[in-house]
Amino acid sequence: MPHFKLTLEYIGTAYHGWQVQPGLPTIQGLLHDRLAMALRQPVAARGAARTDAGVHAVGQVASIESPVEVDPGRLARTLNATLPADIGVVGIERVSSEFHARHSARGRIYRYQIVQGEYISPFLGEFAAHVRAPLDVEAMDQAAGLLVGEMDFSSFCAAGGVSDSPVKVIRRSRVSVRQGNQRLIEYTVEASSFLQHMVRTIAGTLIEVGRGRLKPERIPEIIASRDRPLAGPTAPAMGLFLVQVLYPDLAQDRIG
Amino acid sequence: MPHFKLTLEYIGTAYHGWQVQPGLPTIQGLLHDRLAMALRQPVAARGAARTDAGVHAVGQVASIESPVEVDPGRLARTLNATLPADIGVVGIERVSSEFHARHSARGRIYRYQIVQGEYISPFLGEFAAHVRAPLDVEAMDQAAGLLVGEMDFSSFCAAGGVSDSPVKVIRRSRVSVRQGNQRLIEYTVEASSFLQHMVRTIAGTLIEVGRGRLKPERIPEIIASRDRPLAGPTAPAMGLFLVQVLYPDLAQDRIG
Repeated sequence: MPHFKLTLEYIGTAYHGWQVQPGLPTIQGLLHDRLAMALRQPVAARGAARTDAGVHAVGQVASIESPVEVDPGRLARTLNATLPADIGVVGIERVSSEFHARHSARGRIYRYQIVQGEYISPFLGEFAAHVRAPLDVEAMDQAAGLLVGEMDFSSFCAAGGVSDSPVKVIRRSRVSVRQGNQRLIEYTVEASSFLQHMVRTIAGTLIEVGRGRLKPERIPEIIASRDRPLAGPTAPAMGLFLVQVLYPDLAQDRIG
Repeated sequence: MPHFKLTLEYIGTAYHGWQVQPGLPTIQGLLHDRLAMALRQPVAARGAARTDAGVHAVGQVASIESPVEVDPGRLARTLNATLPADIGVVGIERVSSEFHARHSARGRIYRYQIVQGEYISPFLGEFAAHVRAPLDVEAMDQAAGLLVGEMDFSSFCAAGGVSDSPVKVIRRSRVSVRQGNQRLIEYTVEASSFLQHMVRTIAGTLIEVGRGRLKPERIPEIIASRDRPLAGPTAPAMGLFLVQVLYPDLAQDRIG
């Protein structure tokens, strides 16, 4: 039976995160429900990343094995017609049976958005953390750069949140400014995979750096300590976007 | 007592438009309520434009006469702390007593957003009309250009919606494409003022042109007919933004 890769977008505000939780609205829960309606049998969707409650996605990936033959374009249309308006299926493609959204992934890119200033626009209110204090973006970017490499990131992991190895490879870690109607500070990070709350803890730490409460030079020491309290507070979920999940070309080959 | 010009943004989705309506949530109604709380007396806010139910704004303007002396920055902070998250006060400045948000305005700029394609992103779902059929953007822009000038726009006015003169001056009328994750077609129009539903009726007519159901050359004939049914359907409110209200420099001089 055919295997599919689904690319999903969602506004996380109304959901208790990606993962199925009995009695609570979750993205995976709704997807399971609509897949069962569309394919007339229960279908398990495996997600590439377990986004937390309130976290958004523009490039979440899920893999399924369909119990029946179905045209991927048609399945996407059916899902989009039945899913709530805050969840969208960007595309569906056939993949080989070896493809697994999580295990096949070679990396994930997240973005954390911060509006700095007295005022936050209603159009950004659900999509960015709001920091009134001035932020030194150069210091934030310097601190962000010190996170690049293969390291034990226990200091940036929620207490009790380490399930697998705390050693991760951060390949890219940058802070930049996008000037629209508002000054939007963006933190972009790419890694092999992430620990629980890792991006939000890094974002919270970078905000401390931006406010001048923490010197960028202290980042290596915080990493080396493997001690969560040395890092900054966990920044709010609303600022975080799962941007893209990266796969080796092989797994993306269409076989259909 | 001081006169103030308030610049406002809002997501119109949850509201029955700008104007106060007893028992219904409106932007003006909420603003009156929060102004009364902040200034401890009823204060009337006059809006530059009566946006319809579901229409958004990034540059609505309201004028008030405050019954008490108050610092404009402080008033803005108080309003932002008490207004719902989908309404924001971008700024407040002192103006002369002659300033009136509606009467002093010399023009208004609106934007209408259309997502063209099979799929509409959840992040645009509340902020654009969705058209699946292919659209000929060049023909739309050509038709849009034929609306520039001083003309009787009765054909683009809601039935019974003409209160003042149907003669308006359109100074700018352009269709362009913004390519982000999605193909977003934007119609931008600037005029002295607008008739009821005028931008949405123009947008609906331009969509008919884009779909090939109406030739751009027929626009002058539709205008000349002053007959609403010749124009296209009224495009949905969710795609419309009040972008900016234009004033002569004089009225914007700060006197505070």
